[in-house]
Amino acid sequence: MLLLSREDIQEFFTLKETMTAVEKAFRLYSEGKVEVPLRTQIGTENGKGTFIYMPAYCSEESASSIKILGMFPENSRKGLPTINGQVLVLDNETGAITGMLDGTYITELRTGAASGVAFEQLAKKDCRKGALIGTGAQAAAQLEAMLIARSLEEVQVAGRDFEKTQKFVTEMKQKLHHYGVKIMAVEEANEAITDADLIIVATTATSPVFDGELVKAGATVSGVGSYQPQMQEIPASLLVRSQKIYFDSEEAVLSESGDLLIPLADQTITKEQFTGDIGEVINGTLVGRENDQEIIFFKSVGIAAQDVITAKMILEQAKIKAKGLEWG
Amino acid sequence: MLLLSREDIQEFFTLKETMTAVEKAFRLYSEGKVEVPLRTQIGTENGKGTFIYMPAYCSEESASSIKILGMFPENSRKGLPTINGQVLVLDNETGAITGMLDGTYITELRTGAASGVAFEQLAKKDCRKGALIGTGAQAAAQLEAMLIARSLEEVQVAGRDFEKTQKFVTEMKQKLHHYGVKIMAVEEANEAITDADLIIVATTATSPVFDGELVKAGATVSGVGSYQPQMQEIPASLLVRSQKIYFDSEEAVLSESGDLLIPLADQTITKEQFTGDIGEVINGTLVGRENDQEIIFFKSVGIAAQDVITAKMILEQAKIKAKGLEWG
Repeated sequence: MLLLSREDIQEFFTLKETMTAVEKAFRLYSEGKVEVPLRTQIGTENGKGTFIYMPAYCSEESASSIKILGMFPENSRKGLPTINGQVLVLDNETGAITGMLDGTYITELRTGAASGVAFEQLAKKDCRKGALIGTGAQAAAQLEAMLIARSLEEVQVAGRDFEKTQKFVTEMKQKLHHYGVKIMAVEEANEAITDADLIIVATTATSPVFDGELVKAGATVSGVGSYQPQMQEIPASLLVRSQKIYFDSEEAVLSESGDLLIPLADQTITKEQFTGDIGEVINGTLVGRENDQEIIFFKSVGIAAQDVITAKMILEQAKIKAKGLEWG
Repeated sequence: MLLLSREDIQEFFTLKETMTAVEKAFRLYSEGKVEVPLRTQIGTENGKGTFIYMPAYCSEESASSIKILGMFPENSRKGLPTINGQVLVLDNETGAITGMLDGTYITELRTGAASGVAFEQLAKKDCRKGALIGTGAQAAAQLEAMLIARSLEEVQVAGRDFEKTQKFVTEMKQKLHHYGVKIMAVEEANEAITDADLIIVATTATSPVFDGELVKAGATVSGVGSYQPQMQEIPASLLVRSQKIYFDSEEAVLSESGDLLIPLADQTITKEQFTGDIGEVINGTLVGRENDQEIIFFKSVGIAAQDVITAKMILEQAKIKAKGLEWG
């Protein structure tokens, strides 16, 4: 099998290519062409974390995989990554395990790419200002995905800790300088989102992190952070103001995300406001944005379909380019 | 993480040590101390095989793992292994993946060790003759486990193809010569089992492969092969004649094995004849053999508890002995 570390993958695979993979994954998922069995979750008795096993199978792309994640929030105190993982790719013809890829990095790539694909599909053509709320592990890929989807003049970044935000922005200025965009740290999330055309929210918050009334007409918002019922970062007022609400998978979002479950429970919103899955927009069976005034909200929690199609594409390129380490 | 191939493991880890691990695994499983979520199975649309994902978690041993197997029977036509797999070991304190071990070899070891532990617990003290039916991938470890459990004078081996049986016996004579036992190939399964004290059946048969009336009083029989409802290698007459019937996991066996499901369905046997799980014999809560005349049948389908405890023990030894390849 071919072993591919984060550094190996960074050498040859781009976020733009991941967006191609994720767009295909969303379409295949909506067409019922990716089998995604219920993920297995095991919480440790010591309360420190959760093991998550996410298998996926796609006959059409001849791809199978399982992503194995250990999510241990307390690791940050020890200076260790809070998410550890690998994606194993299997051969649909022989059952052999053909690759193992850094699962933490695949998660960052495909989670960023989901926002990127959503903006490509749903955002206005002309966007000027972006906003990113959150400066954690997902932030870098989220920011770049925004820049790939639309040519922006500036992006304002806000987080809980302004020093950390400034440090993140300094790194991003260097890493993303070729996009020719002004990236700046701001102290308040509300400042960042005011007048923004594209907004990404990627926090671990348990209550809304900005004022939904400040989102301007025509904005497209991607909510990335809330993947558990008690997590909420998006104000219900934004959902109420949104003309259209899309998901990576409505089924997955409604089983996991407090961003939707909390306002549904208190009846601030109803399911009638939900438009559908983005895969249906991609394959043309569902309408996307209809004018430049609509506020559109896209919520993703991540589905295994993204992992299997992305990992397969990376593995195929790695073989051609002779990257990684052959083992076993 | 530490990568351990079959050859790496063979360098330092024995079947006898695996039996120590599997005995502990059976005990912990019976005491409810290993969490074994439902395994996920995905059959490929091309009909060629099945992917099996088997997670396990044990707080007491601070061990977590997932075994990933591709079972593709048609591979044998191409000269490829029919079972491919890896076991990933995870750290209960940080969530990190700490090891990847050859899952095909772990499966052979722990499946052989299950028969070995069953014989240690359930067989007469004095045994003279062994019989092994089946010469496939599991056969080598099964044969050795029998020799570890009891000092035998001879073992007769039978399979479908006598030439293949002879080849297997030639290899085993060399590999196991230090046990000082006479190993011989015979043409008929009934010849092998006649007068045998220990019998292992490890085939892929869909109908019984020997005559249950020929099993002598005092024999202990381990059924390894049947792990699907349509697979049956053990004659119902042996179950009827057995004074005691034990399982690795009664729950797992009754959800998978035709050896029990078929005679239960046609009412040749009833569940009242079942004695219980071997883990309860190991921890002393259930009686084992009571005299040298009883025929005892042990049926195993394999449980993830065996994988997690075995893999953890191998990984710990490998670290101490500086074996394998550190990656990532």
